[in-house]
Amino acid sequence: MRFTTEQRFDDGVLEREFVLGDIPGILWTPASMSAPAPLILLGHPGGLRAMYPRLVARARHCAAEGFAAATLELPGSGDRPRSATADEARADLRRAVAAGEPVDDEIVDRLVLPLVEQAVPEWRAALDALLALPEIRGPVGLAGGVISIGVRLAVVEPRIAAAVLFAGSYVPRAVVEEARQVAVPLLVLLQWDDEGNDRQMALDLFDALGAEEKTLHANTGGHTGVPAFEGDDANRFFVRHLT
Amino acid sequence: MRFTTEQRFDDGVLEREFVLGDIPGILWTPASMSAPAPLILLGHPGGLRAMYPRLVARARHCAAEGFAAATLELPGSGDRPRSATADEARADLRRAVAAGEPVDDEIVDRLVLPLVEQAVPEWRAALDALLALPEIRGPVGLAGGVISIGVRLAVVEPRIAAAVLFAGSYVPRAVVEEARQVAVPLLVLLQWDDEGNDRQMALDLFDALGAEEKTLHANTGGHTGVPAFEGDDANRFFVRHLT
Repeated sequence: MRFTTEQRFDDGVLEREFVLGDIPGILWTPASMSAPAPLILLGHPGGLRAMYPRLVARARHCAAEGFAAATLELPGSGDRPRSATADEARADLRRAVAAGEPVDDEIVDRLVLPLVEQAVPEWRAALDALLALPEIRGPVGLAGGVISIGVRLAVVEPRIAAAVLFAGSYVPRAVVEEARQVAVPLLVLLQWDDEGNDRQMALDLFDALGAEEKTLHANTGGHTGVPAFEGDDANRFFVRHLT
Repeated sequence: MRFTTEQRFDDGVLEREFVLGDIPGILWTPASMSAPAPLILLGHPGGLRAMYPRLVARARHCAAEGFAAATLELPGSGDRPRSATADEARADLRRAVAAGEPVDDEIVDRLVLPLVEQAVPEWRAALDALLALPEIRGPVGLAGGVISIGVRLAVVEPRIAAAVLFAGSYVPRAVVEEARQVAVPLLVLLQWDDEGNDRQMALDLFDALGAEEKTLHANTGGHTGVPAFEGDDANRFFVRHLT
Protein backbone atom coordinates (compact mmCIF):
# COMPACT_ATOMS: atom_id res chain seq x y z
CA MET A 1 0.00 0.00 0.00
CA ARG A 2 1.39 3.36 -1.03
CA PHE A 3 -0.08 6.76 -0.07
CA THR A 4 -0.35 9.14 -3.04
CA THR A 5 -2.10 12.25 -1.70
CA GLU A 6 -2.82 13.77 1.69
CA GLN A 7 -5.16 16.56 2.83
CA ARG A 8 -6.51 17.65 6.20
CA PHE A 9 -10.09 18.98 6.50
CA ASP A 10 -11.15 21.81 8.77
CA ASP A 11 -12.56 19.28 11.26
CA GLY A 12 -9.03 17.86 11.50
CA VAL A 13 -9.83 14.62 9.65
CA LEU A 14 -6.86 13.42 7.58
CA GLU A 15 -7.67 12.03 4.13
CA ARG A 16 -5.05 9.98 2.31
CA GLU A 17 -5.52 8.42 -1.10
CA PHE A 18 -3.53 5.24 -1.63
CA VAL A 19 -2.94 2.49 -4.14
CA LEU A 20 -2.88 -1.16 -3.18
CA GLY A 21 -1.04 -2.66 -6.14
CA ASP A 22 -3.02 -0.92 -8.88
CA ILE A 23 -6.25 -0.57 -6.90
CA PRO A 24 -7.06 2.97 -5.71
CA GLY A 25 -8.40 3.53 -2.21
CA ILE A 26 -8.90 6.23 0.43
CA LEU A 27 -8.18 6.26 4.16
CA TRP A 28 -9.61 8.78 6.60
CA THR A 29 -8.36 9.08 10.20
CA PRO A 30 -9.81 11.18 13.03
CA ALA A 31 -8.37 14.54 14.05
CA SER A 32 -7.04 13.61 17.46
CA MET A 33 -5.83 10.10 18.06
CA SER A 34 -4.43 9.21 21.46
CA ALA A 35 -4.71 5.51 20.60
CA PRO A 36 -5.17 3.46 17.41
CA ALA A 37 -8.67 3.92 15.96
CA PRO A 38 -11.02 1.04 15.15
CA LEU A 39 -11.56 0.81 11.39
CA ILE A 40 -14.78 0.95 9.40
CA LEU A 41 -14.70 -0.24 5.80
CA LEU A 42 -17.00 1.90 3.67
CA GLY A 43 -18.65 -0.01 0.84
CA HIS A 44 -20.12 1.57 -2.30
CA PRO A 45 -21.58 0.42 -5.62
CA GLY A 46 -18.35 1.06 -7.58
CA GLY A 47 -16.91 4.28 -8.95
CA LEU A 48 -14.97 6.07 -6.19
CA ARG A 49 -14.97 9.44 -7.98
CA ALA A 50 -18.77 9.57 -8.37
CA MET A 51 -19.31 8.22 -4.86
CA TYR A 52 -16.71 10.50 -3.24
CA PRO A 53 -19.09 13.16 -1.84
CA ARG A 54 -21.18 10.56 0.01
CA LEU A 55 -18.13 8.55 1.10
CA VAL A 56 -16.25 11.52 2.52
CA ALA A 57 -19.36 12.66 4.40
CA ARG A 58 -19.76 9.20 5.94
CA ALA A 59 -16.05 8.96 6.72
CA ARG A 60 -16.03 12.32 8.54
CA HIS A 61 -19.17 11.29 10.43
CA CYS A 62 -17.36 8.07 11.49
CA ALA A 63 -14.26 10.08 12.44
CA ALA A 64 -16.33 12.33 14.69
CA GLU A 65 -17.01 9.18 16.75
CA GLY A 66 -13.31 8.23 16.79
CA PHE A 67 -13.35 5.72 13.95
CA ALA A 68 -10.95 5.49 11.02
CA ALA A 69 -12.63 4.73 7.68
CA ALA A 70 -11.35 3.32 4.44
CA THR A 71 -12.64 2.36 1.03
CA LEU A 72 -11.34 0.64 -2.10
CA GLU A 73 -12.35 0.86 -5.76
CA LEU A 74 -14.34 -2.15 -6.96
CA PRO A 75 -13.20 -4.42 -9.82
CA GLY A 76 -14.43 -3.11 -13.17
CA SER A 77 -15.32 0.35 -11.80
CA GLY A 78 -13.81 3.83 -11.88
CA ASP A 79 -10.32 3.86 -13.42
CA ARG A 80 -9.94 0.08 -13.18
CA PRO A 81 -10.17 -2.14 -16.32
CA ARG A 82 -13.79 -2.85 -17.19
CA SER A 83 -15.16 -6.39 -17.26
CA ALA A 84 -16.88 -7.35 -20.52
CA THR A 85 -18.92 -10.03 -18.70
CA ALA A 86 -20.14 -7.56 -16.06
CA ASP A 87 -20.90 -4.86 -18.66
CA GLU A 88 -22.95 -7.36 -20.67
CA ALA A 89 -24.83 -8.58 -17.58
CA ARG A 90 -25.53 -4.98 -16.56
CA ALA A 91 -26.89 -4.21 -20.03
CA ASP A 92 -29.12 -7.31 -19.88
CA LEU A 93 -30.38 -6.26 -16.45
CA ARG A 94 -31.15 -2.72 -17.64
CA ARG A 95 -32.99 -4.08 -20.67
CA ALA A 96 -35.12 -6.32 -18.45
CA VAL A 97 -35.89 -3.48 -16.01
CA ALA A 98 -36.67 -1.03 -18.84
CA ALA A 99 -39.02 -3.59 -20.42
CA GLY A 100 -40.73 -4.08 -17.06
CA GLU A 101 -39.74 -7.77 -17.09
CA PRO A 102 -38.65 -9.75 -14.03
CA VAL A 103 -34.85 -9.96 -13.84
CA ASP A 104 -33.62 -13.52 -14.40
CA ASP A 105 -31.59 -15.08 -11.59
CA GLU A 106 -29.08 -15.99 -14.26
CA ILE A 107 -28.45 -12.30 -15.08
CA VAL A 108 -28.02 -11.41 -11.40
CA ASP A 109 -25.59 -14.31 -10.95
CA ARG A 110 -23.56 -13.21 -13.98
CA LEU A 111 -23.44 -9.63 -12.71
CA VAL A 112 -22.74 -10.16 -9.03
CA LEU A 113 -20.97 -13.48 -8.39
CA PRO A 114 -17.72 -12.70 -10.30
CA LEU A 115 -17.65 -9.28 -8.62
CA VAL A 116 -17.85 -10.92 -5.18
CA GLU A 117 -15.17 -13.48 -6.13
CA GLN A 118 -12.76 -10.74 -7.16
CA ALA A 119 -13.57 -7.98 -4.67
CA VAL A 120 -13.51 -9.98 -1.43
CA PRO A 121 -9.81 -11.00 -1.62
CA GLU A 122 -8.93 -7.41 -2.56
CA TRP A 123 -10.74 -5.96 0.47
CA ARG A 124 -9.06 -8.57 2.69
CA ALA A 125 -5.67 -7.58 1.31
CA ALA A 126 -6.54 -3.94 2.00
CA LEU A 127 -7.41 -4.94 5.57
CA ASP A 128 -3.99 -6.57 5.96
CA ALA A 129 -2.30 -3.36 4.83
CA LEU A 130 -4.53 -0.99 6.82
CA LEU A 131 -4.29 -2.94 10.08
CA ALA A 132 -0.51 -2.91 9.74
CA LEU A 133 -0.58 0.89 10.16
CA PRO A 134 0.14 1.95 13.76
CA GLU A 135 -2.84 4.37 13.82
CA ILE A 136 -5.42 1.67 12.96
CA ARG A 137 -6.69 -1.27 15.00
CA GLY A 138 -9.31 -3.97 14.81
CA PRO A 139 -11.97 -5.13 15.32
CA VAL A 140 -13.29 -3.87 12.03
CA GLY A 141 -16.76 -2.71 11.02
CA LEU A 142 -18.18 -2.95 7.54
CA ALA A 143 -20.68 -0.38 6.26
CA GLY A 144 -22.78 -0.40 3.13
CA GLY A 145 -21.82 -1.18 -0.42
CA VAL A 146 -22.82 -4.14 -2.56
CA ILE A 147 -24.61 -6.36 -0.06
CA SER A 148 -23.38 -9.60 -1.65
CA ILE A 149 -19.77 -8.49 -1.08
CA GLY A 150 -20.68 -7.54 2.50
CA VAL A 151 -22.24 -10.93 3.19
CA ARG A 152 -19.22 -12.82 1.84
CA LEU A 153 -16.79 -10.58 3.75
CA ALA A 154 -18.75 -11.03 6.97
CA VAL A 155 -18.64 -14.81 6.51
CA VAL A 156 -14.98 -15.29 5.55
CA GLU A 157 -13.17 -12.42 7.30
CA PRO A 158 -12.83 -13.01 11.05
CA ARG A 159 -11.54 -9.47 11.70
CA ILE A 160 -14.96 -8.05 10.82
CA ALA A 161 -16.91 -7.83 14.07
CA ALA A 162 -20.07 -6.00 13.01
CA ALA A 163 -21.67 -4.89 9.75
CA VAL A 164 -24.18 -2.36 8.50
CA LEU A 165 -25.58 -3.77 5.25
CA PHE A 166 -27.63 -1.81 2.73
CA ALA A 167 -30.36 -3.93 1.11
CA GLY A 168 -30.16 -1.98 -2.10
CA SER A 169 -29.03 -4.25 -4.90
CA TYR A 170 -29.82 -7.50 -6.65
CA VAL A 171 -28.79 -10.52 -4.62
CA PRO A 172 -27.98 -13.94 -6.12
CA ARG A 173 -29.84 -16.89 -4.54
CA ALA A 174 -26.46 -18.36 -3.60
CA VAL A 175 -25.77 -15.27 -1.47
CA VAL A 176 -29.12 -15.64 0.33
CA GLU A 177 -27.99 -19.17 1.22
CA GLU A 178 -24.54 -17.94 2.26
CA ALA A 179 -26.20 -15.30 4.45
CA ARG A 180 -27.21 -18.06 6.89
CA GLN A 181 -23.53 -18.33 7.88
CA VAL A 182 -23.19 -14.68 8.90
CA ALA A 183 -22.70 -14.63 12.67
CA VAL A 184 -21.63 -11.04 13.49
CA PRO A 185 -24.14 -8.42 14.74
CA LEU A 186 -25.89 -6.72 11.84
CA LEU A 187 -27.78 -3.55 11.13
CA VAL A 188 -29.57 -3.86 7.78
CA LEU A 189 -30.86 -0.73 6.05
CA LEU A 190 -33.75 -0.99 3.62
CA GLN A 191 -35.31 1.82 1.62
CA TRP A 192 -38.97 0.82 1.59
CA ASP A 193 -39.70 2.44 -1.80
CA ASP A 194 -36.38 1.61 -3.48
CA GLU A 195 -37.11 1.78 -7.20
CA GLY A 196 -34.25 -0.58 -8.11
CA ASN A 197 -34.67 -3.14 -5.36
CA ASP A 198 -37.09 -6.00 -4.77
CA ARG A 199 -38.53 -5.39 -1.29
CA GLN A 200 -39.58 -8.99 -0.70
CA MET A 201 -36.15 -10.27 -1.68
CA ALA A 202 -34.57 -7.79 0.74
CA LEU A 203 -36.86 -9.03 3.54
CA ASP A 204 -36.07 -12.65 2.62
CA LEU A 205 -32.37 -11.84 2.82
CA PHE A 206 -32.82 -10.20 6.23
CA ASP A 207 -34.69 -13.30 7.36
CA ALA A 208 -31.93 -15.59 6.04
CA LEU A 209 -29.05 -13.77 7.75
CA GLY A 210 -27.77 -16.06 10.50
CA ALA A 211 -26.69 -13.41 13.00
CA GLU A 212 -28.20 -13.77 16.46
CA GLU A 213 -28.33 -10.00 16.81
CA LYS A 214 -29.71 -8.42 13.68
CA THR A 215 -31.78 -5.29 13.29
CA LEU A 216 -33.61 -4.05 10.22
CA HIS A 217 -34.12 -0.31 9.75
CA ALA A 218 -36.59 0.31 6.94
CA ASN A 219 -37.37 3.88 5.93
CA THR A 220 -39.79 5.40 3.48
CA GLY A 221 -38.17 6.79 0.35
CA GLY A 222 -36.15 5.73 -2.66
CA HIS A 223 -32.68 4.28 -3.13
CA THR A 224 -30.70 7.41 -2.27
CA GLY A 225 -33.15 8.72 0.36
CA VAL A 226 -31.61 7.13 3.49
CA PRO A 227 -32.41 9.65 6.26
CA ALA A 228 -29.50 11.45 7.91
CA PHE A 229 -30.40 10.02 11.34
CA GLU A 230 -29.44 6.54 10.06
CA GLY A 231 -25.82 7.75 10.00
CA ASP A 232 -26.08 8.45 13.73
CA ASP A 233 -27.72 5.07 14.30
CA ALA A 234 -24.90 3.33 12.38
CA ASN A 235 -22.30 5.16 14.49
CA ARG A 236 -24.01 4.05 17.70
CA PHE A 237 -24.21 0.48 16.39
CA PHE A 238 -20.45 0.50 15.76
CA VAL A 239 -19.74 2.12 19.14
CA ARG A 240 -21.68 -0.77 20.75
CA HIS A 241 -19.76 -3.43 18.87
CA LEU A 242 -16.26 -2.09 18.13
CA THR A 243 -15.31 -0.11 21.22
CA MET B 1 -58.53 13.83 37.34
CA ARG B 2 -57.64 13.24 40.96
CA PHE B 3 -54.19 12.23 42.26
CA THR B 4 -54.34 9.38 44.78
CA THR B 5 -50.70 8.53 45.59
CA GLU B 6 -47.32 10.18 45.19
CA GLN B 7 -43.76 8.86 45.45
CA ARG B 8 -40.36 10.17 44.37
CA PHE B 9 -37.70 7.75 43.08
CA ASP B 10 -33.99 8.07 43.79
CA ASP B 11 -33.46 9.51 40.29
CA GLY B 12 -35.84 12.31 41.31
CA VAL B 13 -38.70 11.17 39.05
CA LEU B 14 -42.10 11.88 40.62
CA GLU B 15 -44.73 9.15 40.21
CA ARG B 16 -48.37 10.01 40.87
CA GLU B 17 -51.24 7.58 40.52
CA PHE B 18 -54.52 9.17 39.56
CA VAL B 19 -58.08 8.35 38.69
CA LEU B 20 -59.90 9.89 35.76
CA GLY B 21 -63.51 9.27 36.73
CA ASP B 22 -63.16 5.61 37.68
CA ILE B 23 -60.23 4.86 35.36
CA PRO B 24 -56.84 4.43 37.07
CA GLY B 25 -53.73 5.96 35.56
CA ILE B 26 -50.16 6.96 36.40
CA LEU B 27 -48.21 10.13 35.68
CA TRP B 28 -44.42 10.40 35.87
CA THR B 29 -42.61 13.75 35.71
CA PRO B 30 -38.85 14.40 35.47
CA ALA B 31 -36.72 15.33 38.48
CA SER B 32 -35.85 18.87 37.51
CA MET B 33 -38.31 20.88 35.48
CA SER B 34 -37.44 24.45 34.59
CA ALA B 35 -40.22 24.45 31.97
CA PRO B 36 -43.29 22.30 31.22
CA ALA B 37 -42.26 18.87 29.91
CA PRO B 38 -43.52 17.40 26.64
CA LEU B 39 -45.72 14.36 27.34
CA ILE B 40 -45.37 10.79 26.14
CA LEU B 41 -48.38 8.50 26.46
CA LEU B 42 -47.23 4.98 27.32
CA GLY B 43 -49.43 2.28 25.83
CA HIS B 44 -49.66 -1.30 27.10
CA PRO B 45 -51.74 -4.42 26.43
CA GLY B 46 -54.01 -3.89 29.46
CA GLY B 47 -53.43 -4.65 33.15
CA LEU B 48 -51.49 -1.77 34.73
CA ARG B 49 -50.42 -3.81 37.75
CA ALA B 50 -48.82 -6.60 35.71
CA MET B 51 -47.29 -4.12 33.26
CA TYR B 52 -46.05 -1.76 35.99
CA PRO B 53 -42.37 -2.87 36.05
CA ARG B 54 -41.96 -2.33 32.31
CA LEU B 55 -43.99 0.90 32.32
CA VAL B 56 -42.08 2.51 35.18
CA ALA B 57 -38.76 1.58 33.55
CA ARG B 58 -39.85 3.19 30.28
CA ALA B 59 -41.25 6.24 32.09
CA ARG B 60 -37.98 6.83 33.97
CA HIS B 61 -36.06 6.37 30.73
CA CYS B 62 -38.30 9.02 29.13
CA ALA B 63 -37.87 11.30 32.16
CA ALA B 64 -34.08 11.09 31.84
CA GLU B 65 -34.54 12.83 28.48
CA GLY B 66 -36.83 15.49 30.00
CA PHE B 67 -40.17 13.97 29.04
CA ALA B 68 -43.21 13.45 31.25
CA ALA B 69 -44.95 10.10 30.74
CA ALA B 70 -48.45 8.90 31.52
CA THR B 71 -50.56 5.80 31.12
CA LEU B 72 -54.16 4.77 31.65
CA GLU B 73 -55.80 1.42 32.36
CA LEU B 74 -57.57 -0.09 29.34
CA PRO B 75 -61.29 -0.91 29.27
CA GLY B 76 -61.92 -4.44 30.58
CA SER B 77 -58.45 -4.80 32.12
CA GLY B 78 -56.95 -4.63 35.61
CA ASP B 79 -59.47 -3.48 38.22
CA ARG B 80 -61.94 -2.23 35.60
CA PRO B 81 -65.16 -4.15 34.84
CA ARG B 82 -64.48 -6.99 32.41
CA SER B 83 -66.18 -7.14 29.02
CA ALA B 84 -67.99 -10.41 28.33
CA THR B 85 -67.67 -9.84 24.57
CA ALA B 86 -63.91 -9.28 24.78
CA ASP B 87 -63.40 -12.25 27.11
CA GLU B 88 -65.29 -14.48 24.71
CA ALA B 89 -63.34 -13.21 21.69
CA ARG B 90 -60.06 -13.72 23.58
CA ALA B 91 -61.05 -17.30 24.42
CA ASP B 92 -61.94 -17.95 20.76
CA LEU B 93 -58.59 -16.51 19.67
CA ARG B 94 -56.67 -18.66 22.17
CA ARG B 95 -58.56 -21.76 21.03
CA ALA B 96 -57.66 -21.05 17.39
CA VAL B 97 -54.00 -20.41 18.24
CA ALA B 98 -53.77 -23.51 20.45
CA ALA B 99 -55.30 -25.62 17.67
CA GLY B 100 -52.79 -24.16 15.21
CA GLU B 101 -55.62 -22.73 13.12
CA PRO B 102 -55.54 -19.35 11.38
CA VAL B 103 -57.31 -16.70 13.44
CA ASP B 104 -60.52 -15.53 11.76
CA ASP B 105 -60.75 -11.83 10.94
CA GLU B 106 -64.12 -11.93 12.65
CA ILE B 107 -62.53 -12.93 15.99
CA VAL B 108 -59.92 -10.18 15.74
CA ASP B 109 -62.63 -7.62 14.93
CA ARG B 110 -64.72 -8.75 17.93
CA LEU B 111 -61.68 -8.53 20.22
CA VAL B 112 -60.10 -5.28 19.07
CA LEU B 113 -62.66 -2.95 17.51
CA PRO B 114 -64.83 -2.38 20.64
CA LEU B 115 -61.63 -1.88 22.65
CA VAL B 116 -60.50 0.86 20.25
CA GLU B 117 -63.96 2.46 20.30
CA GLN B 118 -63.93 2.68 24.08
CA ALA B 119 -60.25 3.35 24.81
CA VAL B 120 -59.61 6.18 22.37
CA PRO B 121 -62.08 8.69 23.89
CA GLU B 122 -60.75 7.78 27.36
CA TRP B 123 -57.13 8.49 26.37
CA ARG B 124 -58.22 11.75 24.76
CA ALA B 125 -60.01 12.75 27.97
CA ALA B 126 -56.83 11.87 29.89
CA LEU B 127 -54.89 14.13 27.48
CA ASP B 128 -57.29 16.99 28.23
CA ALA B 129 -56.68 16.56 31.96
CA LEU B 130 -52.91 16.04 31.71
CA LEU B 131 -52.29 18.98 29.40
CA ALA B 132 -54.24 21.19 31.81
CA LEU B 133 -51.49 20.61 34.41
CA PRO B 134 -48.94 23.45 34.49
CA GLU B 135 -45.98 21.02 34.44
CA ILE B 136 -47.05 19.31 31.17
CA ARG B 137 -47.12 20.62 27.63
CA GLY B 138 -47.76 19.36 24.11
CA PRO B 139 -46.95 18.26 21.49
CA VAL B 140 -47.56 14.73 22.68
CA GLY B 141 -45.83 11.48 21.77
CA LEU B 142 -47.45 8.07 21.83
CA ALA B 143 -45.42 4.95 22.61
CA GLY B 144 -46.37 1.32 22.33
CA GLY B 145 -49.50 -0.45 23.48
CA VAL B 146 -52.25 -2.01 21.38
CA ILE B 147 -51.31 -0.85 17.88
CA SER B 148 -54.94 -0.48 16.76
CA ILE B 149 -55.53 2.03 19.56
CA GLY B 150 -52.32 3.83 18.56
CA VAL B 151 -53.38 4.07 14.92
CA ARG B 152 -56.81 5.47 15.79
CA LEU B 153 -55.33 7.94 18.29
CA ALA B 154 -52.74 9.10 15.75
CA VAL B 155 -55.52 9.67 13.20
CA VAL B 156 -58.10 11.47 15.37
CA GLU B 157 -56.02 13.28 18.00
CA PRO B 158 -54.25 16.36 16.59
CA ARG B 159 -52.19 16.88 19.75
CA ILE B 160 -50.22 13.68 18.99
CA ALA B 161 -47.20 14.73 16.93
CA ALA B 162 -45.22 11.49 16.72
CA ALA B 163 -45.76 7.84 17.61
CA VAL B 164 -43.73 4.73 18.34
CA LEU B 165 -45.98 1.78 17.49
CA PHE B 166 -45.29 -1.82 18.49
CA ALA B 167 -46.38 -4.30 15.81
CA GLY B 168 -47.19 -6.91 18.38
CA SER B 169 -50.88 -7.71 18.30
CA TYR B 170 -53.68 -8.76 16.00
CA VAL B 171 -54.86 -5.96 13.76
CA PRO B 172 -58.35 -5.77 12.22
CA ARG B 173 -58.44 -5.18 8.45
CA ALA B 174 -60.37 -1.97 9.11
CA VAL B 175 -57.41 -0.65 11.10
CA VAL B 176 -55.00 -1.45 8.25
CA GLU B 177 -57.25 0.71 6.06
CA GLU B 178 -57.42 3.43 8.72
CA ALA B 179 -53.61 3.36 8.94
CA ARG B 180 -53.44 5.08 5.54
CA GLN B 181 -54.72 8.26 7.24
CA VAL B 182 -51.90 8.41 9.79
CA ALA B 183 -49.78 11.46 8.93
CA VAL B 184 -47.46 11.94 11.94
CA PRO B 185 -43.85 10.65 11.94
CA LEU B 186 -43.72 7.02 13.05
CA LEU B 187 -41.23 4.57 14.45
CA VAL B 188 -42.65 1.04 14.21
CA LEU B 189 -41.09 -1.76 16.26
CA LEU B 190 -41.41 -5.35 15.09
CA GLN B 191 -40.08 -8.44 16.83
CA TRP B 192 -39.06 -10.63 13.89
CA ASP B 193 -39.75 -13.92 15.71
CA ASP B 194 -42.82 -12.80 17.65
CA GLU B 195 -44.64 -15.99 18.51
CA GLY B 196 -48.04 -14.29 18.84
CA ASN B 197 -47.83 -12.00 15.82
CA ASP B 198 -48.21 -12.49 12.09
CA ARG B 199 -45.05 -11.03 10.55
CA GLN B 200 -46.54 -10.51 7.11
CA MET B 201 -49.53 -8.69 8.56
CA ALA B 202 -47.18 -6.45 10.54
CA LEU B 203 -45.23 -5.64 7.37
CA ASP B 204 -48.49 -4.99 5.51
CA LEU B 205 -49.54 -2.62 8.28
CA PHE B 206 -46.21 -0.79 8.11
CA ASP B 207 -46.66 -0.50 4.36
CA ALA B 208 -50.20 0.84 4.76
CA LEU B 209 -49.32 3.57 7.29
CA GLY B 210 -49.71 6.89 5.51
CA ALA B 211 -46.97 8.83 7.31
CA GLU B 212 -44.41 10.45 5.03
CA GLU B 213 -41.70 9.77 7.61
CA LYS B 214 -41.95 6.25 8.91
CA THR B 215 -39.21 3.92 10.07
CA LEU B 216 -39.43 0.22 10.86
CA HIS B 217 -37.07 -1.28 13.42
CA ALA B 218 -37.22 -5.07 13.26
CA ASN B 219 -35.17 -7.10 15.71
CA THR B 220 -34.55 -10.80 16.15
CA GLY B 221 -36.31 -12.32 19.12
CA GLY B 222 -39.75 -12.97 20.54
CA HIS B 223 -42.58 -10.74 21.74
CA THR B 224 -40.95 -9.51 24.94
CA GLY B 225 -37.39 -9.48 23.58
CA VAL B 226 -37.21 -5.86 22.36
CA PRO B 227 -33.52 -4.91 22.83
CA ALA B 228 -32.69 -2.22 25.39
CA PHE B 229 -31.13 0.01 22.71
CA GLU B 230 -34.59 0.47 21.16
CA GLY B 231 -35.52 2.49 24.25
CA ASP B 232 -32.69 4.88 23.42
CA ASP B 233 -33.76 4.99 19.78
CA ALA B 234 -37.34 5.82 20.82
CA ASN B 235 -36.08 8.63 23.06
CA ARG B 236 -34.04 10.10 20.21
CA PHE B 237 -37.07 9.81 17.89
CA PHE B 238 -39.17 11.80 20.37
CA VAL B 239 -36.39 14.36 20.89
CA ARG B 240 -36.38 14.90 17.11
CA HIS B 241 -40.13 15.39 16.92
CA LEU B 242 -41.32 16.82 20.25
CA THR B 243 -38.60 19.25 21.27
